[in-house]
Amino acid sequence: MKRIAILGSTGSIGTQALDIIDRNRNLLKVTVLSCASNIQLLCQQIEKFSPEMVIVDKEDDALHLAGKYRNLEMFYGMEGLITAAESQYDLLLNSLVGMRGLIPTYHAVCQGRDIALANKETLVAGGEIVMDMAEKNHVKMLPVDSEHSAIFQCLQGNKKEQLKKIYLTASGGPFRGYNLEQLESVSLEQALKHPNWSMGSKVTIDSATMMNKGLEVIEAKWLFDVPVSKIQIAVHPQSVIHSMVEYADNSIIAQLGAPDMRVPISYAFGYPDRIENTFEPLDLFGLGSHLTFEKPDVKVFKNIAIAYEAAEKGGTYPALMNGANEALVQLFLEKKIKFTDIQNTIERIMNAHVPTYNLGLEDILEADKAARKMVYELLK
Amino acid sequence: MKRIAILGSTGSIGTQALDIIDRNRNLLKVTVLSCASNIQLLCQQIEKFSPEMVIVDKEDDALHLAGKYRNLEMFYGMEGLITAAESQYDLLLNSLVGMRGLIPTYHAVCQGRDIALANKETLVAGGEIVMDMAEKNHVKMLPVDSEHSAIFQCLQGNKKEQLKKIYLTASGGPFRGYNLEQLESVSLEQALKHPNWSMGSKVTIDSATMMNKGLEVIEAKWLFDVPVSKIQIAVHPQSVIHSMVEYADNSIIAQLGAPDMRVPISYAFGYPDRIENTFEPLDLFGLGSHLTFEKPDVKVFKNIAIAYEAAEKGGTYPALMNGANEALVQLFLEKKIKFTDIQNTIERIMNAHVPTYNLGLEDILEADKAARKMVYELLK
Repeated sequence: MKRIAILGSTGSIGTQALDIIDRNRNLLKVTVLSCASNIQLLCQQIEKFSPEMVIVDKEDDALHLAGKYRNLEMFYGMEGLITAAESQYDLLLNSLVGMRGLIPTYHAVCQGRDIALANKETLVAGGEIVMDMAEKNHVKMLPVDSEHSAIFQCLQGNKKEQLKKIYLTASGGPFRGYNLEQLESVSLEQALKHPNWSMGSKVTIDSATMMNKGLEVIEAKWLFDVPVSKIQIAVHPQSVIHSMVEYADNSIIAQLGAPDMRVPISYAFGYPDRIENTFEPLDLFGLGSHLTFEKPDVKVFKNIAIAYEAAEKGGTYPALMNGANEALVQLFLEKKIKFTDIQNTIERIMNAHVPTYNLGLEDILEADKAARKMVYELLK
Repeated sequence: MKRIAILGSTGSIGTQALDIIDRNRNLLKVTVLSCASNIQLLCQQIEKFSPEMVIVDKEDDALHLAGKYRNLEMFYGMEGLITAAESQYDLLLNSLVGMRGLIPTYHAVCQGRDIALANKETLVAGGEIVMDMAEKNHVKMLPVDSEHSAIFQCLQGNKKEQLKKIYLTASGGPFRGYNLEQLESVSLEQALKHPNWSMGSKVTIDSATMMNKGLEVIEAKWLFDVPVSKIQIAVHPQSVIHSMVEYADNSIIAQLGAPDMRVPISYAFGYPDRIENTFEPLDLFGLGSHLTFEKPDVKVFKNIAIAYEAAEKGGTYPALMNGANEALVQLFLEKKIKFTDIQNTIERIMNAHVPTYNLGLEDILEADKAARKMVYELLK
């Protein structure tokens, strides 16, 4: 029985993870649930999965739930998330959205706990310190993103030293093929319609701006310890091939399947085994019958070029880029800025940055804060 | 230093294998060369690679070469191939064409020697006895066919019990999309033009009739110990994805690359390592940019249905089918029969067969002989 702590249990990844656990109660058990504000869904999850500990954002909600479920350990806020990260479990699924995912992951890794990582920012901003600590503490860092899970699966049975190139696939989002002018006039509603995947709103916007792919390039750099120059984004609108690894003998191993996040989630839960399921498999002669690949247009989707640059420069650049992006996406979701303001503003902030190197957690959090502050100053 | 014995060194696979060895003289060494009749090329190979033993088909050629190269052990005929199979080496590359590949493989396996297998008939006709013996003697049976090498690569780092389905890809050959009527009037010259792969004439015709794929299905059944009902042929005209494995969690692992037989050959030579090379890698945004998959038309390409039936019936059926096919392809190469006579005659011979089960090597050789005899009787 694998005991799983879930941070971010009411989001898209969290609910799908609980679906996997529900179907495999002989293998998997929930110890921790956490959510920010969807208390109603959280209550349903508590009743269905009987966790030992629950974390919410606000003290009020914690008090309310502590009254309702008397056997539960209840905590709240970032301190609560850290308490959860340091509690008793076998695997921590971090499916928090945004920068707040970093600190609990870091605490779990410091304790030598295995991580199923769905929170991109953990590695984008904190890759250097998190992966150093993970290596020191022999932590298994299991990717949950479909792309990184694909790469991880393609590496099984192979030697990482023989990796020559990673093809990180990208759907291209709803605006694939647009020129800069067309991109400037897209609406929030258009940006929220992702062609293939159902995800939360932050990730969906990142996918439309292609910052999502930029973040994934940086994440892959840290997860698989490869320079970003070895990572090639391949735009693949069908989202059937989830990524590929090319080896020194020119052999390429790919992982594919129907676009169903439950497959990478269950791979992380079952690793090194695969957990059998009854989901719809890929119809190779239907959805899979025409697969195409093209290079991304980095002149239009500048976020890709920005992310490569941030990764190559290192230091506080990725945390800065990520913080700026998070603040800008929030403003776009509030309809306060244009779609292209996101990438243009990140570019300006990056250009003005004086970086720090040899990072500690504090430097990362400061760069993140500085980026958000600059966003509000530039756009006020 | 891995010592490699090559049976069939002047053919398409043999010459490419020698190219690999030539590029990796620090890792690989030739101990045995063998060929049927291309003595001129064989002499060049002897001078370049200095083997310890050489096998030819005819006594005359053996005597001639023994006079020319006095330090060489020279043998000829099937006895010579068996002597080679039982000589000192680390890995036997069997790239003989046709049924004559079976006996040397069987002898090598009986001695517990590892095999790099490019000879389909070894397993198509003799799968039952060869794989039984291979298991008993802990023989590594390393596939060299691009498809089987792909499947083998896709199985690395996974559990075979979790295999749900194999997608065996097929170019579809030069007559993909033809109806039965069109197929009847194709010429030898048309059949010899394969769109993607450069191979010997027997294999090229098998590829045009799609018997090649039928043979590969049976080979896969034995190599990977799966029922043929779990093997799905996927027609993929670009020959970029070389095959795939679907697992119990609906995750599919694929192996792909430029169509270059040297990659699977070098994988068999280097296994479990990959041997680095400087060949042209796949251009994902060129050749690899549009990949399609469709079901094969088994009503037109009857050989596929015949092969599945032979595999399911078992016993002497596959050996019979293979023997008939070999004789018929020879007749077609001599322009003595029509293209569709191949599949139609195999079908008739299969229907008339009274099978034997619980096979010994003799039963297989007899079924093979009986099939060839029937071919000549039916078509004389």
